[in-house]
Amino acid sequence: MTNDYAGEILAGSVRATARLISWLEDEDQRALEHMERLYPHTGRAYVIGITGSPGAGKSTLTDKLSYAIRRQGLTIGIIAVDPSSPFTGGAVLGDRVRMTRLGVDPGVYIRSMATRGFLGGLARATSDVVKVLDAFGKDIIIIETVGVGQDEVDIIRLADTTCLVLVPGLGDTIQSMKAGVMEIADLFVINKADRVGADQLLSEVALRIQQDSQIKNKPWTPELVKTVAVEDQGVNDLWDAIRRHRTFLESDGRLLEKRRERTRNETLQMIHNELFRRIRGRLAENGELDRLVDQILAAKTDPYAVMRGVIGDWLHTP
Amino acid sequence: MTNDYAGEILAGSVRATARLISWLEDEDQRALEHMERLYPHTGRAYVIGITGSPGAGKSTLTDKLSYAIRRQGLTIGIIAVDPSSPFTGGAVLGDRVRMTRLGVDPGVYIRSMATRGFLGGLARATSDVVKVLDAFGKDIIIIETVGVGQDEVDIIRLADTTCLVLVPGLGDTIQSMKAGVMEIADLFVINKADRVGADQLLSEVALRIQQDSQIKNKPWTPELVKTVAVEDQGVNDLWDAIRRHRTFLESDGRLLEKRRERTRNETLQMIHNELFRRIRGRLAENGELDRLVDQILAAKTDPYAVMRGVIGDWLHTP
Repeated sequence: MTNDYAGEILAGSVRATARLISWLEDEDQRALEHMERLYPHTGRAYVIGITGSPGAGKSTLTDKLSYAIRRQGLTIGIIAVDPSSPFTGGAVLGDRVRMTRLGVDPGVYIRSMATRGFLGGLARATSDVVKVLDAFGKDIIIIETVGVGQDEVDIIRLADTTCLVLVPGLGDTIQSMKAGVMEIADLFVINKADRVGADQLLSEVALRIQQDSQIKNKPWTPELVKTVAVEDQGVNDLWDAIRRHRTFLESDGRLLEKRRERTRNETLQMIHNELFRRIRGRLAENGELDRLVDQILAAKTDPYAVMRGVIGDWLHTP
Repeated sequence: MTNDYAGEILAGSVRATARLISWLEDEDQRALEHMERLYPHTGRAYVIGITGSPGAGKSTLTDKLSYAIRRQGLTIGIIAVDPSSPFTGGAVLGDRVRMTRLGVDPGVYIRSMATRGFLGGLARATSDVVKVLDAFGKDIIIIETVGVGQDEVDIIRLADTTCLVLVPGLGDTIQSMKAGVMEIADLFVINKADRVGADQLLSEVALRIQQDSQIKNKPWTPELVKTVAVEDQGVNDLWDAIRRHRTFLESDGRLLEKRRERTRNETLQMIHNELFRRIRGRLAENGELDRLVDQILAAKTDPYAVMRGVIGDWLHTP
């Protein structure tokens, strides 16, 4: 008999939520039927992305922001994504102060996720975890990630409002940033704003935002918020700014448009993953792949011809 | 009329090599036919991976190692992979000292590569660039990358011999490393070995290697090399160690086995990519995807059902 995880999650079971998320992390195919059952119950939560360099104070900021949100009576899911460098692995999310206090609040669900060994797997799993926490009933979902690499950029695209956290003295000068960052950030947070150099960083970012908005004529001009997260300063300002961005997105159907785009990408991704999973599975199971590799190594064919052959055999144009 | 880039590359054209690599970086489909023509001319070069934390001195070490290799009369291709955090983009590979002296040596071809906006794209493009430089006739190809994220781990797997560069005082204690690193490294390089803490780091790594080899009973025990790259110290020792590892791999057909595995993954990758290109092309171009997304948003279906429908229509079991 199969466990009714979907039903249990909708009924508020933490245990079932944790189990399903583990399956998603492991790419366990059993997750699929539960995800499908949860799907109609998603789309209600608002998703906030918090990103920035290591050491920018994202964890502390996320925690303080969570308290501010909880004080409004809203429930929260936090997904802390570990970019999992093999060289600094885990250190980034090492000290989970939050686990002590936030973790005992039943209105808060916290989950860390680490990189797995498959292409784009982390972004895909994070997208599914957002759905689980959404169906689980969380009002606000915060995705916290270190902005390194393509996976993390794809993760941050899951957010409705993305906050880019900068810190004076970390080398986070606005000049050192790539063009893409300006596109990603809806809000800029200058954290540790009591440090030397904060005002200079603030003016740099303000100038860049101004230049950018003149060139691109974008409907939303990113806001700038100063915080000292450890002192709980500016956190309510940040929450207010997030709400203003949400209101902006909800006007004129912009939020819907954003979610339509996400649904589109997600559907393509799912079709692609499943097609590849099936083809790889069968090629590997019957030894066909090994035979093809043998032929490539014997110079009787090449990977390009094999690719065309496999796709020609398996993909049928309706 | 199409340019005969493949023919020109085989004849030694730097211009054609640079152009084809740019196409690969841009995922330009025109690269495909040239890659297929070059494929029979690949598999000759030996690939060295140099990885480690930012600040470990990898660029300098790569340069000095290149001089040592050039003194043996061998030609070199260097692929410097920029992990391209949107927040620190370019800074890591910022000062290319090598461009001045190494860059004028016709026996050396240097190329920097940065992250593009597609999943696993950097690893894929790097794999293709290795093939181009191989067909171009380079004896040794050095891939230099900062070891952050899945993309970079996939890149380093392209190497026959991987050197992990550690530096005293960078927080690179062996305890902070994930298990995976021990699997990746064939050689450990303690660079800046004249610094305080070098001997301690060396003993830590040596102990860890010893423990690891006892537990896992692996055929190759990673070697440890001390270097002071800026002073050109230990670089010949490193080259000797790389050659010993190569000799080890070439005995008993281990190198062949490694390359068989790589060909297998590469073929699967190519099928994976081409599948996505076709799916996206067919569904997106004729408006079918938009119709499906409309139905999902109207709660008439869900992405899971859409996935099953498309796969049912398209997947043909040969």
